[in-house]
Amino acid sequence: MDRLLSLGFEVTGVDNFSAGQRRFLKDSLEHKNFNFFEIDLLDGQALEKPFDGADIVFHLAANADVRFGTNHPDRDLQQNVVATHNVLEVMRKLNIRRVMFSSTGSVYGETSVVPTPEDAPFPVQTSLYGASKTAAEALIAAYCEGFGMTAWIFRFVSILGERYTHGHVFDFYKSLMSDPTVLRVLGNGKQRKSYLYVQDCIDAILLAISKASDRVNIINLGTNEYCEVNDSIKWICEELDVSPKIELSGGDRGWIGDNPFIFLDTTKMRSFGWKPKLSIREGVVKTVEYLKANEWVFSERLK
Amino acid sequence: MDRLLSLGFEVTGVDNFSAGQRRFLKDSLEHKNFNFFEIDLLDGQALEKPFDGADIVFHLAANADVRFGTNHPDRDLQQNVVATHNVLEVMRKLNIRRVMFSSTGSVYGETSVVPTPEDAPFPVQTSLYGASKTAAEALIAAYCEGFGMTAWIFRFVSILGERYTHGHVFDFYKSLMSDPTVLRVLGNGKQRKSYLYVQDCIDAILLAISKASDRVNIINLGTNEYCEVNDSIKWICEELDVSPKIELSGGDRGWIGDNPFIFLDTTKMRSFGWKPKLSIREGVVKTVEYLKANEWVFSERLK
Repeated sequence: MDRLLSLGFEVTGVDNFSAGQRRFLKDSLEHKNFNFFEIDLLDGQALEKPFDGADIVFHLAANADVRFGTNHPDRDLQQNVVATHNVLEVMRKLNIRRVMFSSTGSVYGETSVVPTPEDAPFPVQTSLYGASKTAAEALIAAYCEGFGMTAWIFRFVSILGERYTHGHVFDFYKSLMSDPTVLRVLGNGKQRKSYLYVQDCIDAILLAISKASDRVNIINLGTNEYCEVNDSIKWICEELDVSPKIELSGGDRGWIGDNPFIFLDTTKMRSFGWKPKLSIREGVVKTVEYLKANEWVFSERLK
Repeated sequence: MDRLLSLGFEVTGVDNFSAGQRRFLKDSLEHKNFNFFEIDLLDGQALEKPFDGADIVFHLAANADVRFGTNHPDRDLQQNVVATHNVLEVMRKLNIRRVMFSSTGSVYGETSVVPTPEDAPFPVQTSLYGASKTAAEALIAAYCEGFGMTAWIFRFVSILGERYTHGHVFDFYKSLMSDPTVLRVLGNGKQRKSYLYVQDCIDAILLAISKASDRVNIINLGTNEYCEVNDSIKWICEELDVSPKIELSGGDRGWIGDNPFIFLDTTKMRSFGWKPKLSIREGVVKTVEYLKANEWVFSERLK
């Protein structure tokens, strides 16, 4: 959003602050080209006003919590599937033809093909989050075919960097703030994951929208590397200058539906001339630095 | 349902008669092992009574209308995705661990791999129907992983035979009843499709449930052949003893999202020792015979 404003676009934001923070909007609200509506996407009708006249919708809203999906099986369905349907319906009514969607590498479930390309074998879902994003992708593609829309669907690895408010760096940082002598880790620490720095992610999205011209463009986003949870812990602890005792819960998965090896094939995105500027390690360090400078994000009630 | 009753099982039926016909239940309602509830799956709470004590749920309810999906974009989402979620939620609450689901070959979109195996490349959806069934499959798989359920998900080609109330044989028969001299056909008549006779389909489902033992079993169902729409027209006309003038609307698709070539690889199902008893031609003829003997099904208001 800030990037689009800095590029000179008129931007209208819609958020219900279920995951986002009001403070993130502080600067943009002062920008002459920015409008904002506090709306829940489950209220489809309310979307007509902010969407009216838009050239493209960036649909980034979601319940992005993979780990606790089984605690509230309704949430992914409502916030990721029904909300996406509402976005598409309003686009259809207002004749808005272009949509960008933030999907996830979780749609590949526990694929046998790693690094995983976009046309990996039809996966079996292992998490409600992955299932709901798969469903949303499917709806978007069907709308493109049925109503002449164009979509750019990005399957992200986990994103790092500024405005980071959930994920393992957040959890570990928070735990180490309250007790720097011990760190409890879900699984055996050997889960292999891939991450991408948020500014590299935004570069990729804007470039792909200008370069990829199919009706439905599905594009993996990630770095050309992965790390173990143990590596990330080491970098975080170095950055915070702490040496906690690591207590592993054991097992090769952190939670039900956790995929012990996430690594996406990003050949397609790289073919457009993109490559990430930051390594995973640099992204983790940037994230810790951001959290150090913004410890207010740990305070749940600050929205 | 009738098959399960004839095998000695206790069966509880749930239907809202949005697609099914009351008359189909006439015999089973007299059976001592049959209970029936007229319920809409969108009323999740109402499902608790009929589901209570079940060993397995056969979830066959759906909006099965592919062609008119774009006329009412809400319907597939509600009847295929939200309804499936409701079924899964009630199963979870009542600790019912086994679910059979009727999916569709439409989930493969316009795949490049034909005959199409279950692990074909991750498809891009082309119809709201296919998208909604993809979404339902994904939810079911995630529930299996999250809550220890087991699923048998069948991707059907079009089904032929007794109790046939929608599809091309139905449409052509109805048209030829009102005017046997002309038949309007969507597309160029060269669309290649695959079909399966309903009793062969039931044989396969029951066999697969007894043989396939993964957590999530995804199984294609179809014959080892396909036919052109033109072939099927010829068989129908022979059976009805009519010689209409064929008027083709032209183009390689009958409607938006129509897949001009559907042919599934059924190696997995055949590995359990199943093969269909009827060819496509025999299935089409059986269907025409059924419709001849049951012309009441053409009367919309007879439910």
